Amino acid sequence: MVFYSGESRIMNFMEKEKPIGVFDSGVGGLTVVKRISSVMPHESIVYFGDTARVPYGSKSNETVIEYTMQAARFLMQKNIKALVVACNTASAVALDVLKKTFTVPIIGMIEPGAKMAIKTTKNHKIGIAGTRATVGNKAYSKQLLALNPLVEVYEQACPLFVPLAEEGWHKHPSALIIAQEYLHDLQMKDIDTLVLGCTHYPILIDVIRKVMGSHVQLIDSGIAASEVVRAELERIGLVSNSNAMGRMDFFVSDIPSTFKNIAQLFLEREVPHVTKIDTEYLSSLPR
Amino acid sequence: MVFYSGESRIMNFMEKEKPIGVFDSGVGGLTVVKRISSVMPHESIVYFGDTARVPYGSKSNETVIEYTMQAARFLMQKNIKALVVACNTASAVALDVLKKTFTVPIIGMIEPGAKMAIKTTKNHKIGIAGTRATVGNKAYSKQLLALNPLVEVYEQACPLFVPLAEEGWHKHPSALIIAQEYLHDLQMKDIDTLVLGCTHYPILIDVIRKVMGSHVQLIDSGIAASEVVRAELERIGLVSNSNAMGRMDFFVSDIPSTFKNIAQLFLEREVPHVTKIDTEYLSSLPR
Repeated sequence: MVFYSGESRIMNFMEKEKPIGVFDSGVGGLTVVKRISSVMPHESIVYFGDTARVPYGSKSNETVIEYTMQAARFLMQKNIKALVVACNTASAVALDVLKKTFTVPIIGMIEPGAKMAIKTTKNHKIGIAGTRATVGNKAYSKQLLALNPLVEVYEQACPLFVPLAEEGWHKHPSALIIAQEYLHDLQMKDIDTLVLGCTHYPILIDVIRKVMGSHVQLIDSGIAASEVVRAELERIGLVSNSNAMGRMDFFVSDIPSTFKNIAQLFLEREVPHVTKIDTEYLSSLPR
Repeated sequence: MVFYSGESRIMNFMEKEKPIGVFDSGVGGLTVVKRISSVMPHESIVYFGDTARVPYGSKSNETVIEYTMQAARFLMQKNIKALVVACNTASAVALDVLKKTFTVPIIGMIEPGAKMAIKTTKNHKIGIAGTRATVGNKAYSKQLLALNPLVEVYEQACPLFVPLAEEGWHKHPSALIIAQEYLHDLQMKDIDTLVLGCTHYPILIDVIRKVMGSHVQLIDSGIAASEVVRAELERIGLVSNSNAMGRMDFFVSDIPSTFKNIAQLFLEREVPHVTKIDTEYLSSLPR
């Protein structure tokens, strides 16, 4: 048992009730917010989606690092106790720089997803479904092979999955036909584990499961990352003591007319208030 | 007959052999390049696609105007004799500013497409298929109603058409199912004319025609704009005198690995050389 002086007890209480910051280039990270809030319902969350500058996948590494740093600075001003980078591109490119710059725990998508896949697979054949950018830079393959050089990894880009998810067409007949087309090669490879390597893809999990069959375990990187966040908060003693539901605050750099619809679809709950933050403001934040 | 002095004859010859500039936020404008080159095969074309900053549809009007002006300045440096804004968002937002700033003819997508639709319709019921941005700002409706207040206009956003076209899935079974879903309401409205209000959509013309039926005339804004370009060049006496095929030069602000594949699909010919232009350079061009 640890004894605190009165002042440090109050300090520690306040530290524990700080929010978790979640950053994504757009709306996909909302599926990760949903996972964190179901694993740790009492934690508050501050979300920033860089919807004005999405997608990051087609931008240079320097640009992705700069935008991610801006987002991180913004969330640090919101006094967060941990930062989840719920964007595969930013995770692949900017995580090291973030870890060197900030002292709070920084959790990306790729390492947690890869670790869970390694734990899950029995035949050591793992599939990755991701955007063209994520598959192109082989972020998951590298991580998986670093964890276990004996696994076989098969990556498949599924560019239509993101617009299908954002359109809310996860139950539309076209979703099944498109999933069958994209996942056909992975089916032939006898994989027993498939990583959903894009935060949009959990929206399509039913159709992906239908195509791959129940013998293939699907890895939701958002769930994997949520477990890592909880472990990190436990390690540093900053799990919330609150009994109330955590609050959620949403910030975006642009508010498309469809944002609220997509957010409700991705979070499966009402999104009460969304605040717009200018990109000019973001780029003016002190380094 | 007009008589020139020796010097002005050479000047006029050089003016005629200048290229036509074509600008788009990404690759969609390549379908317009194809139309221009089939209507005027001897004209040279300089294309700029702002692939690093695509899509424009989710950006503010100020940002779209700024990026479009940068693109126009870049193309003016290439000594163009006319500028085609082959991007519906930029056409809707930035055309007036361009026309006030530059002296060469500026041709957008919306007015030519709308004029051709008005000429084509017999029952005065016109459909518009476009991106969510184009449909959201009602650019075609406004233009059509300005030309003829008695037409009935029905707009339909088709967000999955762009990724389908970029994926090269215009013959995939999912394209038909998706087109049936999006175009169902327009079919019910008894329209006799449908404007393809996005430069990507001509790639999907076969499947759109199959769904709408042969009694609905499809308007390709690229064809309409090409006719306007030819008329403008004739009006100012700058139609090329060359007998050789015009040359094509392509510039993009980022080169995704898939650019050449998409370009060949959209142009239906080889794309010999593509040059990357940094956005930092674009924003540094003198105003």
